[in-house]
Amino acid sequence: MNVDDLKSSTGEWLKGVGNQSDIVISSRIRLARNVAGRRFVNRASDEERTELEVLLRDAIRDTGLLEDMLYLNLAKVEPIDRQFLVERHLISREHAGAEWQRGVALTRSERASLMVNEEDHLRIQMLSSGLEMEKLWASIDELDTALESRVDYAFSDKYGYLTACPTNVGTGMRVSVLMHLPALVVTDEIQRALRSLMATRFTVRGFYGEGTQAVGDLYQISNQATLGVREDELIGEISGVVMMIADYERRIREAIMERNRTAMEDCAWRSFGLLAHARTINSEEALKHLSKVRMGVNMGVISGLSVARLNEIFLWTLPAHMQKLEGRELDPERRDCVRARYIREQLAQPSKS
Amino acid sequence: MNVDDLKSSTGEWLKGVGNQSDIVISSRIRLARNVAGRRFVNRASDEERTELEVLLRDAIRDTGLLEDMLYLNLAKVEPIDRQFLVERHLISREHAGAEWQRGVALTRSERASLMVNEEDHLRIQMLSSGLEMEKLWASIDELDTALESRVDYAFSDKYGYLTACPTNVGTGMRVSVLMHLPALVVTDEIQRALRSLMATRFTVRGFYGEGTQAVGDLYQISNQATLGVREDELIGEISGVVMMIADYERRIREAIMERNRTAMEDCAWRSFGLLAHARTINSEEALKHLSKVRMGVNMGVISGLSVARLNEIFLWTLPAHMQKLEGRELDPERRDCVRARYIREQLAQPSKS
Repeated sequence: MNVDDLKSSTGEWLKGVGNQSDIVISSRIRLARNVAGRRFVNRASDEERTELEVLLRDAIRDTGLLEDMLYLNLAKVEPIDRQFLVERHLISREHAGAEWQRGVALTRSERASLMVNEEDHLRIQMLSSGLEMEKLWASIDELDTALESRVDYAFSDKYGYLTACPTNVGTGMRVSVLMHLPALVVTDEIQRALRSLMATRFTVRGFYGEGTQAVGDLYQISNQATLGVREDELIGEISGVVMMIADYERRIREAIMERNRTAMEDCAWRSFGLLAHARTINSEEALKHLSKVRMGVNMGVISGLSVARLNEIFLWTLPAHMQKLEGRELDPERRDCVRARYIREQLAQPSKS
Repeated sequence: MNVDDLKSSTGEWLKGVGNQSDIVISSRIRLARNVAGRRFVNRASDEERTELEVLLRDAIRDTGLLEDMLYLNLAKVEPIDRQFLVERHLISREHAGAEWQRGVALTRSERASLMVNEEDHLRIQMLSSGLEMEKLWASIDELDTALESRVDYAFSDKYGYLTACPTNVGTGMRVSVLMHLPALVVTDEIQRALRSLMATRFTVRGFYGEGTQAVGDLYQISNQATLGVREDELIGEISGVVMMIADYERRIREAIMERNRTAMEDCAWRSFGLLAHARTINSEEALKHLSKVRMGVNMGVISGLSVARLNEIFLWTLPAHMQKLEGRELDPERRDCVRARYIREQLAQPSKS
């Protein structure tokens, strides 16, 4: 398997299935681990990093838990393919851009990705469509345990797992859930809904992580603390918080359909019309309108289009994906035209409500 | 012939034909005339107004110049039909709303309309698609001469025709041309283009006359002075001014097509997409987007749609027209939904570029 083999799939996190998938796009768990007795990646020498890469690559392979595994030494991967992996949430932007020996182990399903020599020696990540925290936790815990029997993790009895950045010390675990909240946004209820998070261990960010704005009505809920809270508690708590917000979004959707159905239909269909006819569009605007169409599909006013298909359109109109689709480099201006053409073609035979 | 007979036509001024019709929507000449020895309409008694109405109605009929003439006593016309006539530019808003004896003589082609007891005893109006000032002048002059041989007009050798408002004294003539200037608007060249009018006898207003904003990139050029300038001079001058502005618009359109074709196509098609899918839309927004689609049709990027068809959509989505189409009164909210549905249906089988 190589990077191009991933082209035939949409990626686990965009399948549009799973629990609460009308509102929850995807769930993710990430564990930060380091090898005992080695310097953290940013302090290590090139030789140490190379040693670590080999050590961890082999340990991962030896677990035998990753089905149809692909291991990539990122230094040997083309920039466009690294960006492609970033867009699929399989590696981080930082990992793609680093300038030392580093790698990633992937499964064909794209549920698991293990980054070697990212900020920590090892970052184990599991992704799933919908709200599937318990299942993810079971899988990642099994994988982590299997690795722990092969690698001596840096661990302190007092603090827990030791990590390059103090914010990850403890469980080294980050749980996050990506939610689609168009009704809360359109009714300006979103701030109220998110304010309830202040009393919890969780925080909210826009799509594409820290410091980014909420584009496309997408919000990412994740934990702040990694110290002094057990993994299974965190899993239970985030599921509860997410279900509470999802219920809020669902109630608002129902209220809109009852009191202001026309405005909702109008909003969804105008976005459909724009996407189906624009001649140039950037990814952010495309995402914004795909969000409204998705809302229309979820609320039953646009039929004959699936959420999975919309997700596919979204994924394939990201810059690296589009360039792989076209088989050539595209400057941003040309990219916006190709994106618009691709979306038009995809929406050309829609069913009407 | 009655008002409903007009329903089968689009009206002369929206035919989308004639000179410079890629930019000039319509031309209009209006003459203000009063009967000698009678008080102006606003000072006259009800008896005098009734007498005037009969006198002028008969005089108009006797000329025999109005083909298939319809004479309407507006006091007997339903408000919805009066509004319908306003939307067709056949009577003024003030004439529709006045509360005394008044009437209008129309031709089936909608080229001519003669308002009796508007601000003046008689307002003769001729309308045409495109830039057709000379032809209009020949027709209106013939009609005016024929009337003058039957009615003793209030005329002063020193001032010319006497009118209720001093701004019309002299020729009593107002010439106006409605222009569609989307390229000048989109490139912000419009102010510069219109500034050149400052040195002329002409002024510019937004669509729907004095005090209204330029909606849908529509601008109305008309004369200010009626005193001290001969009719044929005015006709020649306005044609010159309009052709100058039309050339400016045309040059900018060509420059856009050369340098920024995609942006132009994008703008036109996005408006098409919005119109083809919106579930609720008010007339102003509809006009705004119809304007962009019209630009796309005129510039050859949207095919299979004629300007005449767009004009028809525009006319039939005005409030009174829509209510006549639906055969019932509609509150504004319902009207916006019916308008959106009508536009969707009209654009449902477009040709793609």
